[in-house]
Amino acid sequence: MKTTAFFLSDGTGITVETLGHTLFSNFETMDFIRIRRPYLLGTDEVSKVVEEINETSKNSELPILVFSSLVTAKSRALLNNCNCLLFDIYDIFIKPMENTLNVKSSRKIGRSHGMGTFDNYKHRIDALNFTMENDDGENIKNYQLADVIIIGVSRSGKTPTSLYLALNYGIHTANYPLTIDDLNSENLPSVLKPFKDKLFGLSINPTRLHHIRQERKSNSRYAELAQCQYETRSAEVLYKNYNIPFLDTSTMSIEEIATSILNLKQIQRRINE
Amino acid sequence: MKTTAFFLSDGTGITVETLGHTLFSNFETMDFIRIRRPYLLGTDEVSKVVEEINETSKNSELPILVFSSLVTAKSRALLNNCNCLLFDIYDIFIKPMENTLNVKSSRKIGRSHGMGTFDNYKHRIDALNFTMENDDGENIKNYQLADVIIIGVSRSGKTPTSLYLALNYGIHTANYPLTIDDLNSENLPSVLKPFKDKLFGLSINPTRLHHIRQERKSNSRYAELAQCQYETRSAEVLYKNYNIPFLDTSTMSIEEIATSILNLKQIQRRINE
Repeated sequence: MKTTAFFLSDGTGITVETLGHTLFSNFETMDFIRIRRPYLLGTDEVSKVVEEINETSKNSELPILVFSSLVTAKSRALLNNCNCLLFDIYDIFIKPMENTLNVKSSRKIGRSHGMGTFDNYKHRIDALNFTMENDDGENIKNYQLADVIIIGVSRSGKTPTSLYLALNYGIHTANYPLTIDDLNSENLPSVLKPFKDKLFGLSINPTRLHHIRQERKSNSRYAELAQCQYETRSAEVLYKNYNIPFLDTSTMSIEEIATSILNLKQIQRRINE
Repeated sequence: MKTTAFFLSDGTGITVETLGHTLFSNFETMDFIRIRRPYLLGTDEVSKVVEEINETSKNSELPILVFSSLVTAKSRALLNNCNCLLFDIYDIFIKPMENTLNVKSSRKIGRSHGMGTFDNYKHRIDALNFTMENDDGENIKNYQLADVIIIGVSRSGKTPTSLYLALNYGIHTANYPLTIDDLNSENLPSVLKPFKDKLFGLSINPTRLHHIRQERKSNSRYAELAQCQYETRSAEVLYKNYNIPFLDTSTMSIEEIATSILNLKQIQRRINE
């Protein structure tokens, strides 16, 4: 069974799309066709989308879903002409908040994923610069400035997790690869020892690692299952011996790894407040 | 005026936090203290958070807000004991969707930001690898594989935008810096000419660029206002002469730049469907 979902916004649309993503993951038997209409700044544009929604609804067996974060009263009024199940974020959330907190909302468009303060922007770019400069053990001079240092074997997810933490939360994230020499010695690399409290380990199922490495360098020693088994087992021994918190990332998304690290290490975000 | 907002989730909490971020940006006069409680997997944990909410509410002048994406009926029932304005995503969205679509939700926890398919994961990592390898004009061999090539002067926002597009939408994003030589010649760099349809230009207010460059290399020729004025003006001339779509990013967040590029160039996302 399938139906169409429209995401309407006067800004990026990220909020309604994120919401839709969560909701739809609860309906495994359904197929949702997603139509995104961000940056709807005038009532003419909204009217056209309303027509589009009603046209789509004519050819749909199931009701159309509409998720809207439009703010202005005029635009929102037009949505009442839609033949759909409408979720108007403004009605659902802003109105009860206004009533309960006894305060008026500003009703300005496109505010939520806007720039924010210059400080916030600077934090984010600083974090990204730090993270790119300290990727994959390339730079080991500035670890005292890191919020967290992610360690793990090659292709365990260090770089995407680091970049996600920097971009989305402004976290200064370094990452350092555990090499065969480190694993053979069963010793934490000496460069990491002074920063033990900042370390977080990534682990991964060896079969999954084998698949990922095969994609990268097929039929190499590096990608062999036995090699992946040895490396992942040795890394976990290291984590346990040094009491380093770690996660098995095999079935986790980058979002899950990143937010789990924040949660388990109680790291303060520098942005998104 | 301030109050406290709790974000409860059995997963990452990204959905409720994104929603809160949007809603709160509509209340400029309010100060919201955010307390995040992700990965609440058992009713014991939820009960503790309910206690925490009620304790907080005793010392709060204004009502406490609670945003929950908890899925299990037992956990959600506990929330009714909260002294707060409760927004239960499940009640608000899932129930009407079930009724309207006449289909049952799966009621599984922590699904929304989970791994998804191996294909989705691979798309995302492939995009990130491509984007890192093709950052800042470092690699110009694979532009035929790019979904988009972002161009602009140094510090106009190319790298953060590229990484955001790769990480969040799986877009293969290359970026290429417009150098002084390129700008002096008023010619599109020859390496870019075959890929004109993939180009997207970033522009920026020269005063803002001056501030950003000052942070990076203070009192350099590179950071001088006159230099920034010359470069930004020349870049815009280039964009116009070659009919390259471009954006002034001065007051835009990375999210806004990234989603605007997707929207203006109608680029298909490879993930997040």
